Amino acid sequence: MKNVFFKKENNIKINDIYRVLGFRNQKINYKVNDIKPLKTAKKDDITFLHSSKYLDFIKKTKSKFLITNKKFIKIIPKKIKLIEVTNVLLSVAKITSLFYPTALDDSFDIDVSSIDKKIFPELKFGRNVLIGKNIKIGRNCSIGHNTIIEKNVKIGNNCNIGSNVIIKNAIVGHNTNILDGAIIGKKGFGFFPEKTKNIRYPHIGLVIVGNNVEIGCNNTIDRGSLSNTIIGDGTFLDNQVHIAHNVKIGKNCIITGQVGFAGSSTIGNRVMIGGQAGISGHLSVGDNVQIGGGSGVIKNIPSNTKVMGYPAKSIRNFLKDNKLND
Amino acid sequence: MKNVFFKKENNIKINDIYRVLGFRNQKINYKVNDIKPLKTAKKDDITFLHSSKYLDFIKKTKSKFLITNKKFIKIIPKKIKLIEVTNVLLSVAKITSLFYPTALDDSFDIDVSSIDKKIFPELKFGRNVLIGKNIKIGRNCSIGHNTIIEKNVKIGNNCNIGSNVIIKNAIVGHNTNILDGAIIGKKGFGFFPEKTKNIRYPHIGLVIVGNNVEIGCNNTIDRGSLSNTIIGDGTFLDNQVHIAHNVKIGKNCIITGQVGFAGSSTIGNRVMIGGQAGISGHLSVGDNVQIGGGSGVIKNIPSNTKVMGYPAKSIRNFLKDNKLND
Amino acid sequence: MKNVFFKKENNIKINDIYRVLGFRNQKINYKVNDIKPLKTAKKDDITFLHSSKYLDFIKKTKSKFLITNKKFIKIIPKKIKLIEVTNVLLSVAKITSLFYPTALDDSFDIDVSSIDKKIFPELKFGRNVLIGKNIKIGRNCSIGHNTIIEKNVKIGNNCNIGSNVIIKNAIVGHNTNILDGAIIGKKGFGFFPEKTKNIRYPHIGLVIVGNNVEIGCNNTIDRGSLSNTIIGDGTFLDNQVHIAHNVKIGKNCIITGQVGFAGSSTIGNRVMIGGQAGISGHLSVGDNVQIGGGSGVIKNIPSNTKVMGYPAKSIRNFLKDNKLND
Repeated sequence: MKNVFFKKENNIKINDIYRVLGFRNQKINYKVNDIKPLKTAKKDDITFLHSSKYLDFIKKTKSKFLITNKKFIKIIPKKIKLIEVTNVLLSVAKITSLFYPTALDDSFDIDVSSIDKKIFPELKFGRNVLIGKNIKIGRNCSIGHNTIIEKNVKIGNNCNIGSNVIIKNAIVGHNTNILDGAIIGKKGFGFFPEKTKNIRYPHIGLVIVGNNVEIGCNNTIDRGSLSNTIIGDGTFLDNQVHIAHNVKIGKNCIITGQVGFAGSSTIGNRVMIGGQAGISGHLSVGDNVQIGGGSGVIKNIPSNTKVMGYPAKSIRNFLKDNKLND
Repeated sequence: MKNVFFKKENNIKINDIYRVLGFRNQKINYKVNDIKPLKTAKKDDITFLHSSKYLDFIKKTKSKFLITNKKFIKIIPKKIKLIEVTNVLLSVAKITSLFYPTALDDSFDIDVSSIDKKIFPELKFGRNVLIGKNIKIGRNCSIGHNTIIEKNVKIGNNCNIGSNVIIKNAIVGHNTNILDGAIIGKKGFGFFPEKTKNIRYPHIGLVIVGNNVEIGCNNTIDRGSLSNTIIGDGTFLDNQVHIAHNVKIGKNCIITGQVGFAGSSTIGNRVMIGGQAGISGHLSVGDNVQIGGGSGVIKNIPSNTKVMGYPAKSIRNFLKDNKLND
Repeated sequence: MKNVFFKKENNIKINDIYRVLGFRNQKINYKVNDIKPLKTAKKDDITFLHSSKYLDFIKKTKSKFLITNKKFIKIIPKKIKLIEVTNVLLSVAKITSLFYPTALDDSFDIDVSSIDKKIFPELKFGRNVLIGKNIKIGRNCSIGHNTIIEKNVKIGNNCNIGSNVIIKNAIVGHNTNILDGAIIGKKGFGFFPEKTKNIRYPHIGLVIVGNNVEIGCNNTIDRGSLSNTIIGDGTFLDNQVHIAHNVKIGKNCIITGQVGFAGSSTIGNRVMIGGQAGISGHLSVGDNVQIGGGSGVIKNIPSNTKVMGYPAKSIRNFLKDNKLND
């Protein structure tokens, strides 16, 4: 899938990458196509390794160029050209900005306009709806009052979008409802803390919403940094749910009110999460998991388990540790 | 009180109910008026029993027809005509849709218009306010910018509605303030999970907001399914509170920021709930209860008690179990 | 700094104060300038003492007049003229309303208008933006669609305000981003519970947002009652954060999604708070503190510590008490 949301520079060479990283004396006049995570990088993409969680992908990667730090340089296969840096993610941010110079700008879409009935003859829409350029809306959809759909967004058939909704940098499937006040597709909360001014991280990922999904009122779903934020088919989200960047939620999940997901966690299929539960970042939750309301999940959860509490543990142990009859 | 929000079909017979439930060979040519919970069903209403929590109401019900499952058929008085089904609530949803065919449609009100100063000569209102047909607004009220009040909503005297508010399927008392960004009256998060596409549950209940109430910024208050969601007189809600369908909150309660209520719980009078606490579904909290911030209430709480923690227990026991001086 | 947001009466005498407090027979024909907390009151301001937390300020205060209750009358220096009341804060509320008669009115700003390009020739702004009188916006700023900026608000240079934002009673620094749906500057959740109708507390404080700040989507930040709510330079707030009145957050803090602050707490510099954590009211958190996601902080936290859990304790003790490997 080509990313139409963020314009990519097509003539970046390793020379340019050396330059933005501050290596003055090194030069390789080789053209690279893009920057990608280890798992998805192709031959002419530059990739990176910043955590031992991703070591498994090193052997399989097709990438010829890799950014990493001192800790990992010894284990990188010799066929891969290494670029050693102190802060891998900061370097990745700089290179991402080189490829996608507009991705740091998260300002509103100023080029919106009212809906032209000639272009969307059968769309049911409210007052003061604003849509950006190049958006696609399928058959039999409705869009409520004051809703803003920014440029390039794609919405499938039979979707109902509520009032006061903001959608940007997103692709929405069929038969999906997005309820009032939801905000979808702004950049994630990713940046590098600095003493005087934090350095923002470019976010070139999208929000991909599946088919038959429901997204509740006042939800906030951030787009991904390098990969996408994904809401799987048939998943329903209640009100005031917060989903951070890069989170991937599976199919047929039920996520109740005020649940929050920190960045980059992956949730399986048919997962049920009770109200106000929180899922920490970079975790993996299996299929058919039930997470009790108010739980705090801070480690991976295997499939087919029920957990509860903070830190979330098996419900049996939770109830043993917390006598209810006082 | 007649429900003017959802149009009821007035010529439904038991025959029709058999048909939507898939019983092909059974026929009773008896006209029924409505579908109601056991507690409120009258002689010509059909009712249902799906949980032993409601067994007490069986003896007193005036209803002649009752939906239930195998588990309960033996205890139903013989004068009541039984309709045995596998999934009671799914059957209730189908019958509710039969009586209220438009209740599943939760789309925005497309028939709104700007405020006509001739109709509301003394109303103070902002820019871009949209109101539906047949709404009533009392004396000495104000409505902020971009606010949407959908059809049939009724607002009492001396009420201040903020900006960016959405109100639908609701009745609001006197001297009540609803602050910026609150969303009131959308359908609850009730549905039947299915492998490919969840079946949505029709919500024909309202949100009933009392007198002298304050509803905070960005609150979400869902309307009831068969009964109403109620916020009692004198109750104040802080910002980012979430109240699910059928919740009934008593009088003079103080609910602080980010508190969440799962569906169908009942809260007494003069209850104080600290920030971020969560109340599970189908619970009963008494009068004069104090619930500490961040608590998770997962069982009934008797009147005149103070609880804290997750699961919420008496504050004395909570502090004993959690030494603070480490 | 002169408070241009709430108009002050300039001819209040102790006589008038006696009158609103219900003392009929006492009269002092002395003009007082304002009502202020002990720490900041000057010679001609009236001040108050309601909690032993503030005893230290008694010796240093320059104020000649002080409101307090029976509990504290003996320790007040004799040079200060005492006014003894039963409920100190209720009396303070009444006197505040005397000085600032409009501060109780928290209705929307009806005197907004569209942006005049002649007055803001270089401002980038969206559709349906509404601004109040006497607002100031610096160079190189942008304001998204449907955003409302009420009277007297001041915004620095290089700020990006998103869409559907509401800002009132606030001063924003330079290089600060305020994201979609944030609501800044409404009155805090402070009032006196009464049987039939709660008495609202006048809020004359502002929200002061520093330089290089980011405020996330759907945040709610309430203005202060007598002092200001402050977000320090370089602090970033994620989505759905709630900050109550009088909270003071230091510089370079990182506050992640759905965190909530109860009123009047003070947070130091470089504090990191994980998702969904809650900070109770009237607490002090030091510098360089790390608070784990989901924690509930109910006591002061010294500088340079890491805490977790509810009640929040040192991470070492938290992990000892909560074995994760079950």
